[in-house]
Amino acid sequence: MFKRVLVANRGEIALRIIRACRELGVESVAVYSEADVDSMHVHLADEAVCIGPASSKESYLKPDRIIAAAEITEADAIHPGYGFLSENARFAEICESCNIQFIGPSAKVISMMGDKATARATAVANGVPTTPGSEILADAKEGLSEAKRIGFPVMIKATAGGGGRGMRPCFKEEDFESLFKAASNEALAAFGNGECYLEKLVLNPHHVEFQVIADRHGNFIQLGERDCSMQRRNQKIIEECPSPLLGPELRGRMAEASVNLIKAIGYENAGTIEYLVDDQGKDFYFMEMNTRIQVEHPVTEEVMGCELIKEQIRIAAGEPLSGHVLNATPRGHSIECRINAEDPFNNFCPSPGKIDMWYAPGGKGVRVDTHVYSGYSVPPNYDSMIAKLIVTGANREIAIARMKRALGEFMIRGIKTTIPFQQEIIAHPDFAAGNYDIGWVARYLEERKG
Amino acid sequence: MFKRVLVANRGEIALRIIRACRELGVESVAVYSEADVDSMHVHLADEAVCIGPASSKESYLKPDRIIAAAEITEADAIHPGYGFLSENARFAEICESCNIQFIGPSAKVISMMGDKATARATAVANGVPTTPGSEILADAKEGLSEAKRIGFPVMIKATAGGGGRGMRPCFKEEDFESLFKAASNEALAAFGNGECYLEKLVLNPHHVEFQVIADRHGNFIQLGERDCSMQRRNQKIIEECPSPLLGPELRGRMAEASVNLIKAIGYENAGTIEYLVDDQGKDFYFMEMNTRIQVEHPVTEEVMGCELIKEQIRIAAGEPLSGHVLNATPRGHSIECRINAEDPFNNFCPSPGKIDMWYAPGGKGVRVDTHVYSGYSVPPNYDSMIAKLIVTGANREIAIARMKRALGEFMIRGIKTTIPFQQEIIAHPDFAAGNYDIGWVARYLEERKG
Repeated sequence: MFKRVLVANRGEIALRIIRACRELGVESVAVYSEADVDSMHVHLADEAVCIGPASSKESYLKPDRIIAAAEITEADAIHPGYGFLSENARFAEICESCNIQFIGPSAKVISMMGDKATARATAVANGVPTTPGSEILADAKEGLSEAKRIGFPVMIKATAGGGGRGMRPCFKEEDFESLFKAASNEALAAFGNGECYLEKLVLNPHHVEFQVIADRHGNFIQLGERDCSMQRRNQKIIEECPSPLLGPELRGRMAEASVNLIKAIGYENAGTIEYLVDDQGKDFYFMEMNTRIQVEHPVTEEVMGCELIKEQIRIAAGEPLSGHVLNATPRGHSIECRINAEDPFNNFCPSPGKIDMWYAPGGKGVRVDTHVYSGYSVPPNYDSMIAKLIVTGANREIAIARMKRALGEFMIRGIKTTIPFQQEIIAHPDFAAGNYDIGWVARYLEERKG
Repeated sequence: MFKRVLVANRGEIALRIIRACRELGVESVAVYSEADVDSMHVHLADEAVCIGPASSKESYLKPDRIIAAAEITEADAIHPGYGFLSENARFAEICESCNIQFIGPSAKVISMMGDKATARATAVANGVPTTPGSEILADAKEGLSEAKRIGFPVMIKATAGGGGRGMRPCFKEEDFESLFKAASNEALAAFGNGECYLEKLVLNPHHVEFQVIADRHGNFIQLGERDCSMQRRNQKIIEECPSPLLGPELRGRMAEASVNLIKAIGYENAGTIEYLVDDQGKDFYFMEMNTRIQVEHPVTEEVMGCELIKEQIRIAAGEPLSGHVLNATPRGHSIECRINAEDPFNNFCPSPGKIDMWYAPGGKGVRVDTHVYSGYSVPPNYDSMIAKLIVTGANREIAIARMKRALGEFMIRGIKTTIPFQQEIIAHPDFAAGNYDIGWVARYLEERKG
């Protein structure tokens, strides 16, 4: 096992990893920007190193500063968390060349799955269904011809896209050229790469993803799915496990496809395979694979009775998956709300600032992962998520009742949060019925405006 | 189901019950003494009624005030929690006569099991092993003769005793008379009843108790055991589920005896049967039955995936036990620390006062049940428990590592707590080995003094 793990991240996930290290008897090193000095993850780590100013580009996204911090503190492994450098193959390579274990898959696999077109081709080659689509397109003209072959509606997608950027849905022929150019230009500006391809647009799809994990000892397993269809602007806000949409037959097919894929690519460590599922819960299509831990991993942990961060660390240290993970069976139902410092009724405008009062819910079936506390100031420089509220119950009905109770107990003064909006969603008959797709939030907000 | 439940208690258990009500869609009424106006249970209930001054005798122990509060607020049921009136058969009768459902067993069963000698006779009659012992003793002379028959050492116990009062161990003949008188006088002063009986004193015994629950539909089940051997002065301070002492064979016998007993007495609602188990984990002896919820019920909830307070309410409303309770199977290991406002290294002297800062641990596998928060003042009038820290992991080793981590994260300023002492226990090799009996704490404290 490692002696000391450096956590190359911030916020709740940094604290999550530090806690896992502590419980494994491994020392932890926090790195932090000048804006994060008061974060609880800095306080609770065994050591903490300031790596630069508030700007992510000058701190959390700076491989040389992170490697230097690891070398100074004699860390023998780095956990990248999610976001920042977690899917940066170059960073994984640098770690390797510095003799520091990167806690995640190999740089080669990160590269392969990080490029969406290659990932898709890999899925196809391994019998995992994908939406009908095209290769990378030379230009709008070729695109239009492919779109006609696939059939409208189609989604124009940049190979380098992410976070909703470089994507345009197109419903009819006459709009194609301008939408293609918009997607390509947006991706070129944001990611330095304007290459695009097409995918059949599945209407009212559900986002269902499978948690996978594999060690160096020949164990390739899946740990069930998460439904993350409750999204605003392609950002998940509520996730649950299991999915209310999937029946046992489809779940079985998706689980099999997921395991086949990670076996085929020789995957190591934790990962997530994201799928679109049609509104009837009949067909599924590979979207992409995230070669890192996800924000919403706790709902899987609660239902499956396992701990993904600890397994990640164990795997990277060469240990096999724990017996209770290999034999995990689901129990109950878990729901997560991402609590963001935003004004949900003012276009999700960020609401950084000082938290005058913070009282988090507790008791049976309530888990709160957060780096904030009463008196903490949320800096304006980063993602607006300040906490994850995870509730678990013996079934979905109990979990929903618990989430209502827990959201109602939360008292946060000084900043605005997404809680009032999440209370509306959780109380909505569509949520109770499990009847929501990835367009639900946008439609609801439209209706709400009246 | 009930419309409104009055919670005839205070502190964390009052909040626990209010949360269960909220999740069941049942309104809750808090009652509180003048000293408890700032408790979170008062804040989070749907309604709250002040029932008197700080003194328990003038508030939480006053049936007429509680009944009046229930009638004013139109509560149709009362949950008594633990302590206070929870095992007061007369109070259960009063509730019944006022047409308010008492959430617990019948007054008749409370009476039967509340009297320790009758409870013991009931156990014997139903084939549940008890330690060899005597009937109620006329005087010290008869006691001595019985003690000789049973064989020293013996425990002198008052029939009305509780919380360690009215009990004296006696190791030799010449001490008997004075110890008998001390036990009897103590019980007379504290409970108005000085009757005593004898029990064989099991040396270095373990306290292992079984959670039982039964509804009005013929379901009588047990939900596994809790080991509560970590005690100081007969007060539990750390509990765990399952017991590290029990093997499957003994567990099976104790489970069977527990179910037989509750079937025989027609028990209804949740209860706990307390046993002594010899140091080898071979034999068990009935101690007593608590006809109410226990402080340490959460460790059972976590391992069995059920919710005892909700089941109590459902049963009292005439509903059958939930399917997931009837089919509950254990998963993982859970440990609870009772966090008391006391100075553990100054004879557990109470440490009431203002909590200047309160940061409770969170994250995976951590549950905190508490009515306190930053700025809250712990009143000097009641039991010193201010929180329960419950951790759960896939196995005992993981749960212990988690408890160390969670205790280490707890930050409480302004008052002293038992946390430093619990950290010492959890880190002790004897605890890791599961090698502790009910005398462990006393011996440890002696050694620690040096």
